[in-house]
Amino acid sequence: MSKFAMFGKLTAVPGKREELGGMMLASSDTLSGMEGCIYYIIHEAEEEPDVLWVTELWESKEAHAASLQNEQVRELIGRCRPLIAEAGGIKVKPLGGKGF
Amino acid sequence: MSKFAMFGKLTAVPGKREELGGMMLASSDTLSGMEGCIYYIIHEAEEEPDVLWVTELWESKEAHAASLQNEQVRELIGRCRPLIAEAGGIKVKPLGGKGF
Repeated sequence: MSKFAMFGKLTAVPGKREELGGMMLASSDTLSGMEGCIYYIIHEAEEEPDVLWVTELWESKEAHAASLQNEQVRELIGRCRPLIAEAGGIKVKPLGGKGF
Repeated sequence: MSKFAMFGKLTAVPGKREELGGMMLASSDTLSGMEGCIYYIIHEAEEEPDVLWVTELWESKEAHAASLQNEQVRELIGRCRPLIAEAGGIKVKPLGGKGF
């Protein structure tokens, strides 16, 4: 089974990045118990004041898809949504490396 | 001490992405023994045929800087350089998350 990675770019509503980042950090506790999630790291972009980047690595595409069905994850996404102006990202295929 | 993250974007010389990725995967063995490196993952961009993205997380900026003085790392960078057309990336500050 191939591992699955995502680079998500979330542009917060102006001035709301810190609040959004805080909510997403709280979500990482939820994800800590989630099967198949190897890492999920939230970063602030240094050169774009409203942007967060979230890098995720999962055991499989299916494990990621299953997480989106989880009730706590859905509830979190619903709470974050009003703070997000735009969601995008970069499509990547992970090859390997340290911590893979 | 703050952790340090990098999103490096490497554009290979046309047609050389696979070769460059292979060299960098070999380097991850070198980095596996390297103090302070939490992860170092190599990805192919799905929508740009010559692009690799490398995400790195280090215990500190100093640990990352020290790795660049390592003889094996310098030798690897030297071998990769002819395959790289352009090096850039996104400056980020890691906040936390699972696997942090």
